[in-house]
Amino acid sequence: MKAARYYAAKDIRIEDIPEPTLVPGSVAINVAWCGICGTDLHEYLDGPIFVPAPGHVHPISQEGSPITLGHEFSGTISALGEGVTDLEVGQNVVVEPYIIGEDVSLADGEPYQLSPDMNFIGLAGHGGGLSEKIVVQRRWVHPIGDIPLDQAALIEPLSVGHHAYVRSGATAGQTALIGGAGPIGLLLAAVLKAEGLTVIMSELSTARKEKALSTGVADYVLDPSEVDVAAEARTISGGRGVDVAFECSSVNAVLDTLLDAVKPAGVVVNVSIWGHPATVDMQKLVLKEIDLRGTIAYAHDHAATIKLVQDGKVNLEPFITGRIELDDLISQGFDQLINHNETQVKIIVRPVPAN
Amino acid sequence: MKAARYYAAKDIRIEDIPEPTLVPGSVAINVAWCGICGTDLHEYLDGPIFVPAPGHVHPISQEGSPITLGHEFSGTISALGEGVTDLEVGQNVVVEPYIIGEDVSLADGEPYQLSPDMNFIGLAGHGGGLSEKIVVQRRWVHPIGDIPLDQAALIEPLSVGHHAYVRSGATAGQTALIGGAGPIGLLLAAVLKAEGLTVIMSELSTARKEKALSTGVADYVLDPSEVDVAAEARTISGGRGVDVAFECSSVNAVLDTLLDAVKPAGVVVNVSIWGHPATVDMQKLVLKEIDLRGTIAYAHDHAATIKLVQDGKVNLEPFITGRIELDDLISQGFDQLINHNETQVKIIVRPVPAN
Repeated sequence: MKAARYYAAKDIRIEDIPEPTLVPGSVAINVAWCGICGTDLHEYLDGPIFVPAPGHVHPISQEGSPITLGHEFSGTISALGEGVTDLEVGQNVVVEPYIIGEDVSLADGEPYQLSPDMNFIGLAGHGGGLSEKIVVQRRWVHPIGDIPLDQAALIEPLSVGHHAYVRSGATAGQTALIGGAGPIGLLLAAVLKAEGLTVIMSELSTARKEKALSTGVADYVLDPSEVDVAAEARTISGGRGVDVAFECSSVNAVLDTLLDAVKPAGVVVNVSIWGHPATVDMQKLVLKEIDLRGTIAYAHDHAATIKLVQDGKVNLEPFITGRIELDDLISQGFDQLINHNETQVKIIVRPVPAN
Repeated sequence: MKAARYYAAKDIRIEDIPEPTLVPGSVAINVAWCGICGTDLHEYLDGPIFVPAPGHVHPISQEGSPITLGHEFSGTISALGEGVTDLEVGQNVVVEPYIIGEDVSLADGEPYQLSPDMNFIGLAGHGGGLSEKIVVQRRWVHPIGDIPLDQAALIEPLSVGHHAYVRSGATAGQTALIGGAGPIGLLLAAVLKAEGLTVIMSELSTARKEKALSTGVADYVLDPSEVDVAAEARTISGGRGVDVAFECSSVNAVLDTLLDAVKPAGVVVNVSIWGHPATVDMQKLVLKEIDLRGTIAYAHDHAATIKLVQDGKVNLEPFITGRIELDDLISQGFDQLINHNETQVKIIVRPVPAN
């Protein structure tokens, strides 16, 4: 079957590889669509990061490069391994793409995303969504009912937004400020809007500002080159500040703005991945008793996220800005995202060529 | 009466001023003892900080410099204003030294310490503990039963520790790492120990290390010049890291260590006052989903703090390292704390000369 394989930075190859083998407790899936993630871009430009270093294997998957890429994918079950009795062949599903030790509990409340050596399917082994087929452990498979398979490829990044929302402790009726309207900022906004919050977004890019408004996920879009975002956000929220804020840009000036914009005892969730240390004015953290919280990926979020889409509270369609074939992954996918980063949100890839 | 009055940095004068007037709803107190706080030192060296700037008055107290100093004090009620019926003349009390708007609710759960223009008695008006007498609003007066008046002068900084403990969400049986064994670090350790935690302290100073051990507030004292504090703390706590950590040094290397030492989903509380921005490795915050929380002063903490002392769970006596007269405030108080900062914990001042 065809698969996109990561060898090294700037070296991703579309190759023919053997189909994966169904084993007891696993589920075979024909991949329908797989999104390209910012993390994939980082691996392409500056990797390996999550991908094991050359000559090394991941301690859980025992795999090293070349690694099949792709962790944002949807598909249809083609076969069930021995012992899997609660799913059916033909069901449409998404995968929560974790590589996590078999001994780690997924019971309610367990922070399994923080377990030792956690990594991702499609970055450190166990196959990937940028291939025609994949076999994954039953525990990571989530049925999606009648959600269209193309939109379902966005459930994974939407779950990242859902997890950030959960980490914030925000509740319906509150006001949120999101710094940065890139893909994760927009999908997080969609979750917050669906959960009943008033959403303010801060963004410089004209294309992204338009997207935030045209998709309806932002109630207000503020441009830091035009207004004092913190002051404006405080005014919108009634004076003392927004209840929660989300850093989705890894830009220090944005983080500073969020610390200024939240109310006393407010929460700032850092969603973005920083390539450099941040400078934090601790006096703001202290004098307002701010909580600055990290969030990574998701845990116990997929079911609630899928329900938001099934119930029509989140419409993922407008966030799909490109549909391409696997053979065009670099030219129409990665290069587009790198060179037209502001107009693209999510490009999804079809590993099996359309008839 | 005699009072220590702040005019400007390096300009604190012991002067005769009129006695304060009892008004309805207030309580007149003969001050017994008043501690010198790090905040007072900062005002002395680099102020005015909390003290209103020259030519300005505080928006709530409507007072400006000269300001009577002292916010860590105990005393005995000498008179009750009209309408105060739940206290008695002769009772020993401490004061929660807030200047907060009359309209701010002190009801359960209200974060009144974060209200607009919050400031402190003894820094921005309403008298101070470094004077013979003071009159304060009933709502800030807390009876202390039979706690000795000298130890009671330490209830205020102990409440700061209690509030940091509450902010951390720590529970009995957990392990805490405190970075810095200065006065607040030690008093916080006393609270944590009283609340059933295992306490690890990180400290360079020999005198402070000895104090942490001799007072019994630390189970382990680690010296960062001798051991890898984060690694050692993780080992002590069973491998994955301490449950909570407290920054009490405003030293960036200490903050870094705490981020390394906490477990996944752990909490780092910043207790110290930073004179400069901190550098924070956001990747640590993200990948471990750490909560970095600010804490300031106290709210709803005095009753629980007083009970810890009354129940014998915290012994404040060993933290009193000096007892002086008001006339010796600079020479035996401030100068001692500045020049012998490592051996001193808390110097307390008696505004009324001993017979």
